[in-house]
Amino acid sequence: MSNSATPRTPVPALDIAAGPIALTRQLCDIESVSGDEQRIADAVAVALAAAPHLHVTRDGDTIIARTELGRTQRVIIAGHLDTVPINNNVPVHERVDAATGEAVLWGRGTVDMKAGAAVQLVLARELTEPAYDITWVWYDHEEVSSELNGLGRALRHHPELFTADFAILCEPTSGGIEGGCNGTLRARVSMLGKRAHSARAWMGVNALHRAAPLLQRLAEFQPETVRVDGLDYREGLNAVRISGGVAGNVIPDRCDIEVNFRFAPHRSTDDAVAFVREFFADADEIEIVDLAAAARPGLDAPLAQSLVARVAGEPHAKDGWTDVARFAELGMPAVNLGPGDPSLAHADDERVPLTQIMAVYEALRGWLTDAL
Amino acid sequence: MSNSATPRTPVPALDIAAGPIALTRQLCDIESVSGDEQRIADAVAVALAAAPHLHVTRDGDTIIARTELGRTQRVIIAGHLDTVPINNNVPVHERVDAATGEAVLWGRGTVDMKAGAAVQLVLARELTEPAYDITWVWYDHEEVSSELNGLGRALRHHPELFTADFAILCEPTSGGIEGGCNGTLRARVSMLGKRAHSARAWMGVNALHRAAPLLQRLAEFQPETVRVDGLDYREGLNAVRISGGVAGNVIPDRCDIEVNFRFAPHRSTDDAVAFVREFFADADEIEIVDLAAAARPGLDAPLAQSLVARVAGEPHAKDGWTDVARFAELGMPAVNLGPGDPSLAHADDERVPLTQIMAVYEALRGWLTDAL
Repeated sequence: MSNSATPRTPVPALDIAAGPIALTRQLCDIESVSGDEQRIADAVAVALAAAPHLHVTRDGDTIIARTELGRTQRVIIAGHLDTVPINNNVPVHERVDAATGEAVLWGRGTVDMKAGAAVQLVLARELTEPAYDITWVWYDHEEVSSELNGLGRALRHHPELFTADFAILCEPTSGGIEGGCNGTLRARVSMLGKRAHSARAWMGVNALHRAAPLLQRLAEFQPETVRVDGLDYREGLNAVRISGGVAGNVIPDRCDIEVNFRFAPHRSTDDAVAFVREFFADADEIEIVDLAAAARPGLDAPLAQSLVARVAGEPHAKDGWTDVARFAELGMPAVNLGPGDPSLAHADDERVPLTQIMAVYEALRGWLTDAL
Repeated sequence: MSNSATPRTPVPALDIAAGPIALTRQLCDIESVSGDEQRIADAVAVALAAAPHLHVTRDGDTIIARTELGRTQRVIIAGHLDTVPINNNVPVHERVDAATGEAVLWGRGTVDMKAGAAVQLVLARELTEPAYDITWVWYDHEEVSSELNGLGRALRHHPELFTADFAILCEPTSGGIEGGCNGTLRARVSMLGKRAHSARAWMGVNALHRAAPLLQRLAEFQPETVRVDGLDYREGLNAVRISGGVAGNVIPDRCDIEVNFRFAPHRSTDDAVAFVREFFADADEIEIVDLAAAARPGLDAPLAQSLVARVAGEPHAKDGWTDVARFAELGMPAVNLGPGDPSLAHADDERVPLTQIMAVYEALRGWLTDAL
């Protein structure tokens, strides 16, 4: 965790002019596991202070930089600064991907999402006269629980800074557009029993045995793929944790199964809760422990359509939950667009193709200067 | 834990002459959770030192007291001194059982097994000229893992003291004879999978879902009741613990189910292992974590038959595993006989009818003086 009582090491100087690939590596080299974003936020703030066309606001370790050019439309372009913990995957370095033959930057943070943050930072400095007013955001605490999320906090503290017509989140999408996102619900589903000595099991009721039909139903369940506004969202319902048991000689009186429901944007959060309660109607207890709304893709917005025209490939649905849902909740169309394969996020062999960093940089730059 | 560096409190003086009920309460009043048996063992040793007809050996907190009268037959009569932890059920006191109207001693240790230990102690002092030579044993660490068991340790250290024709373990049997005991096997049965982000579950394999058929098979299994040497042993196969899961957003790659198989004396330990391996033939891993042999009832032995004739009621099978199996392994017939309902052992409302304490005392005294 950052600690203001500790003597501060000098703020790392970022060389923005070196370009988005070099800057990706510079950002990866600043340790920034969730809770430890102070130095990287300092570095971003110093780099932006040199740009007179930006009005900068800091909220904790979240940096908001706005152009104020009086354009008729405004776009939010946001990304997070933190990473999940390192796991023998630093320092970040260039290599050739053995599987694809592509040149990549390899290591923690390259995909999720220093490459996206670097593209934002180069463009924020470079585009002094963009076609739309832009609200650039770099935020803290994305990789941990939702209540710590820096974007959510900044939205609460400074709602006036987040008025816009469209939002882009630079989370990894392999350089294509991923619209909206699935919602996510976690519930603790429990079966109860009655304890007894396991030498006299017939005097008790085994809660683990009673949980068998629930697990069997999960195993047999075929989740749907749902088309919403032209994109296909693949749902999922899984047991992610299970626990139960008292001692090696006691019939257990409780079995807790934590289930995670990833639901498409055609369902509201209420719909998702109702679905899970119905699916486990025979459970003894159901407690919803986490719930985040899905987001519709928003691709019918004119700004989204012009972006789609700029980016190679067909738009896809975003499988995972992302902070685009925070913009969708405000009624703002929002998409994901960033370098890196999302299935490599958090992987130990996280790596981003160099050409993807440049392609996203080029696509965004072109779009942001199109109307000029 | 006992600690010889701590200043010792005075050894509690036991009033043996007060009788088995009063002595039960005195023994209950000496704190003696497993690992803390030093003071109670001291008290027993002091009480026996006053009996010149007994030859006493101490091994840790296990006390062995033998008559050496040159009788043609020798009997071991054994019981443990430790209890499971107290749980708002001390001090032990007399009350009338609301359910039965019987006068009982209520509280931790009354059933398991201070009443049995007290009967042993009164008889050890009283019977200076028993019909058979007797090896009295009070031992430590019965309520914890098998490798700490004081009876097992004393058997290893002093095998010569344990030569005998018959053994009685004064574990609770509601005052009747319970022959032999079921064996017990614990195994960790595991299913494996492949991790993936739960937003893209189709890229992984859910180990919890794969475990469903194993739990379902356990739930549907009908254990046998097996007649061995005239007694009915009821088997049981149960999941006693389950665990699995990595994080709320990760498809789990492992599910561990701990199962407990209580098996009748017609099966050897090898048979029991083979049964479990066959039952879970489709599991990815099976590890046997605990295994203790069953014991045949041994009721065809002449000493057993004369004891059965003395004790009210029909002999029954012992459901739980007890230390009689240690004697059975030596080829020695052995039975359980003690005051208290075994299903109340370890219960928070553990309680023993006063008349049962006296009945066991009378039956044993009669049998031990029969041949005179």
